[in-house]
Amino acid sequence: MKCLVKESLSVDGLTLKQDVVVPKVKEDEVLIRVQATCVCGTDKSIYLSSRSEGIQKEMRRYLPNGDFKPLVIGHEFCGIVEALGPGIEEKFKDIPEEHKVQKGDYVTAEMHLSCGHCLQCRTGNEHICTKVKVKGVHLDGCFAQYVCVPYKNVILLGKDGDTSKIPPKIGSMLDAFGNAVHTVYEADVRGKSVAILGAGPLGLMAAMLCKEFGAARIYLTEAVDTTRRFELATQFGVDQCFDVSKSSKEFLASVEKNESFANGVDVVLEMSGSPSAYEDAFSVVKNGGEVLLLGITRTPLKDFDIAGSVIWKGVNVKGIFGRKMFGTWETMLRLLRSERLDLQPKLLKIITDKTYSLDQYEEAFGLLNGGKEMKLVFELN
Amino acid sequence: MKCLVKESLSVDGLTLKQDVVVPKVKEDEVLIRVQATCVCGTDKSIYLSSRSEGIQKEMRRYLPNGDFKPLVIGHEFCGIVEALGPGIEEKFKDIPEEHKVQKGDYVTAEMHLSCGHCLQCRTGNEHICTKVKVKGVHLDGCFAQYVCVPYKNVILLGKDGDTSKIPPKIGSMLDAFGNAVHTVYEADVRGKSVAILGAGPLGLMAAMLCKEFGAARIYLTEAVDTTRRFELATQFGVDQCFDVSKSSKEFLASVEKNESFANGVDVVLEMSGSPSAYEDAFSVVKNGGEVLLLGITRTPLKDFDIAGSVIWKGVNVKGIFGRKMFGTWETMLRLLRSERLDLQPKLLKIITDKTYSLDQYEEAFGLLNGGKEMKLVFELN
Amino acid sequence: MKCLVKESLSVDGLTLKQDVVVPKVKEDEVLIRVQATCVCGTDKSIYLSSRSEGIQKEMRRYLPNGDFKPLVIGHEFCGIVEALGPGIEEKFKDIPEEHKVQKGDYVTAEMHLSCGHCLQCRTGNEHICTKVKVKGVHLDGCFAQYVCVPYKNVILLGKDGDTSKIPPKIGSMLDAFGNAVHTVYEADVRGKSVAILGAGPLGLMAAMLCKEFGAARIYLTEAVDTTRRFELATQFGVDQCFDVSKSSKEFLASVEKNESFANGVDVVLEMSGSPSAYEDAFSVVKNGGEVLLLGITRTPLKDFDIAGSVIWKGVNVKGIFGRKMFGTWETMLRLLRSERLDLQPKLLKIITDKTYSLDQYEEAFGLLNGGKEMKLVFELN
Amino acid sequence: MKCLVKESLSVDGLTLKQDVVVPKVKEDEVLIRVQATCVCGTDKSIYLSSRSEGIQKEMRRYLPNGDFKPLVIGHEFCGIVEALGPGIEEKFKDIPEEHKVQKGDYVTAEMHLSCGHCLQCRTGNEHICTKVKVKGVHLDGCFAQYVCVPYKNVILLGKDGDTSKIPPKIGSMLDAFGNAVHTVYEADVRGKSVAILGAGPLGLMAAMLCKEFGAARIYLTEAVDTTRRFELATQFGVDQCFDVSKSSKEFLASVEKNESFANGVDVVLEMSGSPSAYEDAFSVVKNGGEVLLLGITRTPLKDFDIAGSVIWKGVNVKGIFGRKMFGTWETMLRLLRSERLDLQPKLLKIITDKTYSLDQYEEAFGLLNGGKEMKLVFELN
Repeated sequence: MKCLVKESLSVDGLTLKQDVVVPKVKEDEVLIRVQATCVCGTDKSIYLSSRSEGIQKEMRRYLPNGDFKPLVIGHEFCGIVEALGPGIEEKFKDIPEEHKVQKGDYVTAEMHLSCGHCLQCRTGNEHICTKVKVKGVHLDGCFAQYVCVPYKNVILLGKDGDTSKIPPKIGSMLDAFGNAVHTVYEADVRGKSVAILGAGPLGLMAAMLCKEFGAARIYLTEAVDTTRRFELATQFGVDQCFDVSKSSKEFLASVEKNESFANGVDVVLEMSGSPSAYEDAFSVVKNGGEVLLLGITRTPLKDFDIAGSVIWKGVNVKGIFGRKMFGTWETMLRLLRSERLDLQPKLLKIITDKTYSLDQYEEAFGLLNGGKEMKLVFELN
Repeated sequence: MKCLVKESLSVDGLTLKQDVVVPKVKEDEVLIRVQATCVCGTDKSIYLSSRSEGIQKEMRRYLPNGDFKPLVIGHEFCGIVEALGPGIEEKFKDIPEEHKVQKGDYVTAEMHLSCGHCLQCRTGNEHICTKVKVKGVHLDGCFAQYVCVPYKNVILLGKDGDTSKIPPKIGSMLDAFGNAVHTVYEADVRGKSVAILGAGPLGLMAAMLCKEFGAARIYLTEAVDTTRRFELATQFGVDQCFDVSKSSKEFLASVEKNESFANGVDVVLEMSGSPSAYEDAFSVVKNGGEVLLLGITRTPLKDFDIAGSVIWKGVNVKGIFGRKMFGTWETMLRLLRSERLDLQPKLLKIITDKTYSLDQYEEAFGLLNGGKEMKLVFELN
Repeated sequence: MKCLVKESLSVDGLTLKQDVVVPKVKEDEVLIRVQATCVCGTDKSIYLSSRSEGIQKEMRRYLPNGDFKPLVIGHEFCGIVEALGPGIEEKFKDIPEEHKVQKGDYVTAEMHLSCGHCLQCRTGNEHICTKVKVKGVHLDGCFAQYVCVPYKNVILLGKDGDTSKIPPKIGSMLDAFGNAVHTVYEADVRGKSVAILGAGPLGLMAAMLCKEFGAARIYLTEAVDTTRRFELATQFGVDQCFDVSKSSKEFLASVEKNESFANGVDVVLEMSGSPSAYEDAFSVVKNGGEVLLLGITRTPLKDFDIAGSVIWKGVNVKGIFGRKMFGTWETMLRLLRSERLDLQPKLLKIITDKTYSLDQYEEAFGLLNGGKEMKLVFELN
Repeated sequence: MKCLVKESLSVDGLTLKQDVVVPKVKEDEVLIRVQATCVCGTDKSIYLSSRSEGIQKEMRRYLPNGDFKPLVIGHEFCGIVEALGPGIEEKFKDIPEEHKVQKGDYVTAEMHLSCGHCLQCRTGNEHICTKVKVKGVHLDGCFAQYVCVPYKNVILLGKDGDTSKIPPKIGSMLDAFGNAVHTVYEADVRGKSVAILGAGPLGLMAAMLCKEFGAARIYLTEAVDTTRRFELATQFGVDQCFDVSKSSKEFLASVEKNESFANGVDVVLEMSGSPSAYEDAFSVVKNGGEVLLLGITRTPLKDFDIAGSVIWKGVNVKGIFGRKMFGTWETMLRLLRSERLDLQPKLLKIITDKTYSLDQYEEAFGLLNGGKEMKLVFELN
């Protein structure tokens, strides 16, 4: 099969392979023919691996001697079930239709494989499993014509290949959507003032969710490609957008003026990973407010005034990682299928109209690494 | 002044008095000239007091020998500050503009007067104060040209009589809106299936809030005046309305079909007080679901299967009373002032177009007691 | 093998069988040689099945035509792993030592088998799975020399048959202890006043936990065998015990006197299932208090004043079923292994000193059904 | 009256004044004759004000031009009510005995005066009021023979000067105890592993509370005066104490060994304010654990790896300030009055046996600033 492979961590870029053997489906696994696969920020870091010690370390995490072996990357996708592992059909014959995955079904998957046995996994927190392995980071991923995934991680999107309710472009980005859903669900935005820092795909998805859940006022900041992003954000329900590429002054002043009674916003969603955004986060949050952190900084914070930022203000800070297994997925399916909520057209606007073939991977990564596109899909067949 | 008085608990009806002395404003109090005052279900019970031992008992609660004395009723209103108690101006001269109430300001008030000293009051739960006194039930209320209210209970709606942001019709029903807001805030409806039992004013307000907070599917039941109520409910975002005047069968069948995967709805909001609605509530709620109870039954439940309804299903039941002091009020102000949320036009649809003078009280109560209108406003001066 | 079987639901009693075939261990299962097995209230109901429609209905729940087939009952036990299902050893070779179950290990098991696929199971609520099957109720149980249990339900108590940390008598009652732990964890008793209704095994376990978690005052009520139970309760930390066999007057009066400031107790734990206890529960709970319901009534409540009991008081009622999978088990292991907490000697006092062989089952059930003993263990070998 | 005054922020030390005028009790206030007053860490900072820009800035916070005027410091105390402000007796004549403060009563007080009108105050979060004024920091405090406090802030400890239930030494340190209680209540330590960083008075109080609330294992770290502090800690229930004056290695190794299954401790209570403790906090907390921050660092954190510390681990961080008004006080009274809990003897061990007169203030501050004593009481009469 055709697939995109990372061959060496010390060298940037990826390699398109044409004749890799299709993975053999094991017991408890499902083999999926990939229809569409979406590029995530992590994939960009992997592409540029020579520049990030963090990603190198992460990818070597489970390697006995740290020797890296070529790996198919990619972890956001959807596709059609090609085969079930031996015995699965019989084993799961009595489960509800909502979760019975059979050959020909249209599916996506949670690509974080939790160990199932650490304390976190035993207590309903598989999403922060201490031994999580991520397909596309530690194990072969989905930038390929075929991928194998444990049965329990497969999410049914449509029976018999029915993509009419959730089109493949959306089906391929649910991993990212799940990050945004999980983040927003950890806060209470109903009737609240919310500041979203970062207008990348995750920030924009958070914006549409905050609107849908009744936030009274939504602020958004971004430093790059602001014209287009702010246009989308406004459509999605954001009240005020601020270009912070030069300074956060206007943003801070607006919060100070509008939220003087509470002395800040109720909720901050940090979705950018930008060092200056952390400063803004703790600056605008009210006494007793919430700061949810999803964006990942590459560098440690310098001079973090934890007393003034967190303690004296009685602030609650939550680190967010991944998506709940599988609560967030169930929520996503409900949100996407609700006749009243109108999230799908908005989600589509975040992705480029044009889809790419795997062969065009250099062009695709070029656009993303250059900051010219936010979210982009490879179509396979 | 002119006012509506309950003279005897054993006799139905009210008495319009023309020349009652305007109450003298005490220290810590504010005298308000009533502009508009709204009739609540409790007022209907008071009108028909001979038929309800419950309301008689409640109104006698704080009377030394239980001797009832004539009382001005009414507890939902808005108006203009006529005078501040002695010393208040000086005492509160430094408080934020958002809460500085001055002569001429447009205000409403929380009419539940908490004692401030019981454990509930000392721990942030004034709304369930064990010694609460309600103006219009235990103390003189607002079906009158003037009413006195403690300063801390007054809610500022507009400086200098400015009613442009929140019109008096809405200003006069915020007590009721607060009940609905408090109820919905005690649940989490985001992406959830919700059943609202009862399409009276509170049920309809709950419906618009559930829609605003991203419920994935909303069911509503009602037994009287269903055509008009269901039309409104549909406008407010309800997905399915069921007339349960004859039977709940269709409602139960629809839930069973649509919510089979969860074996019921996530959240039930009981807003009707109807005995059969309690049965429905515990019948449709999923294992691990939430049932919020605001509606008040006049009669105890017969044969309540608490094991099958609550225990085996692991259900969480919450009794809801009043509104948080003053968290719910702050929330209401934000919801009503939000430029994006569009609650005001919906709220207005619940109230009759026509307003009444106090002199027309017999006509007004006739319409309400006959079930022909849901919510109705007296306009004064 | 030897085992205790329920042969017919319409006939009381059980049958001791001597030569039933040892169950064959399937894939994903573990075969356990039972060392000790504990008798639970449900087992008493099964013994007396002719008198309870509820238990008959429950035991027929998953039978296609409702035809009941003889069943090994019992669901509280501990034992030694005799064999692992095919392929398990290889499959779980890399899991942490804390959960790696191997031949010869000393174990117990969660006997509620959740379906793994309903919404409850998918969202961290396996304990209220809508399709739960209970071994000893719907499937063959553990009043037998051998029992098979899914690997994931097995709880490791000691490697290589090491029973020195948790003796078999305690190991055999962890299912029941788990009910008590789960109930108490759903409340917050720190510095609180708590009323425990029922001084059976579950009530007494709740008492020792409330003491351990810093309840400021603990009340306990019971109607039978009060002398011995109250002696134990006092040792376990209960402050005041009340015999409510004739009336609850003294109990209510004591709460009224001691808890006048809060107008009731903070937390009620209903562990008895007695109809009069439900009345007491809602009578003594404060405004805004919590009522946790674990005890199961056989009869519906008559004249339940839900408005006065729950709504006006703003009470929170939680139905409790089973134990969290597997959070409660992890908690139990920590509690039992903690060097500082001293729960094991207390737990042992609830069980009869004498242990019984399965052959003595008539004597054993006689004692329990007669209310002369609370908790009793069969020892096998 | 005699009192200890801070005269200039740029000069270290305090001044003992002999003939300051007794403050005149205003409406809504109570005049208290101080019996005992306790020295807090903040008082030490004020003594050494020339060395801390932070404390200088804080003390100037509400001064129009920043001009500092001499101030009586001190904010932990207890005493006897000398006089009530005009009208109070009448105003509060009907409140419950538990809160009716009269002349001659034995009392303490919450010295944080919340504004009552900001969003935080309006929503049950007075403890993080954005305009809080602290007596002894912004207003005259209690290192004096007399102090005036708003009626609502006064906490009744004993009627008619009855100090038999709560001796003055304990009554004078309840402000500090409240910090510890508030911190521990924000976490859930039942059956959990807890690391307390810092064995000063607050750390030791947290330790005794964690023990009382059923923590399964308690770790404690400290860098100074460890012999005596660890002896106390062990008496209070701490399982393992670590001297981290040179390195945290042993502490980290012990957690790694004992908590490998969870990959860290469940709860960290940072009570030291030491920069290295913050590193330890995020190092030992498990994925999904809680870090509660009460200790105040004087310096910003350098190189804070927020991604590795908080985000990837899904950690929840809470800043803690003050005590809940007045929930924490109600809790404290219950904890101290509970016959079963045995906190008072432990609390007394934290304070020096010897009490001091105000005249001995130089000796007293010398001991505290030199780290030779932890907590010390001035006795007045």
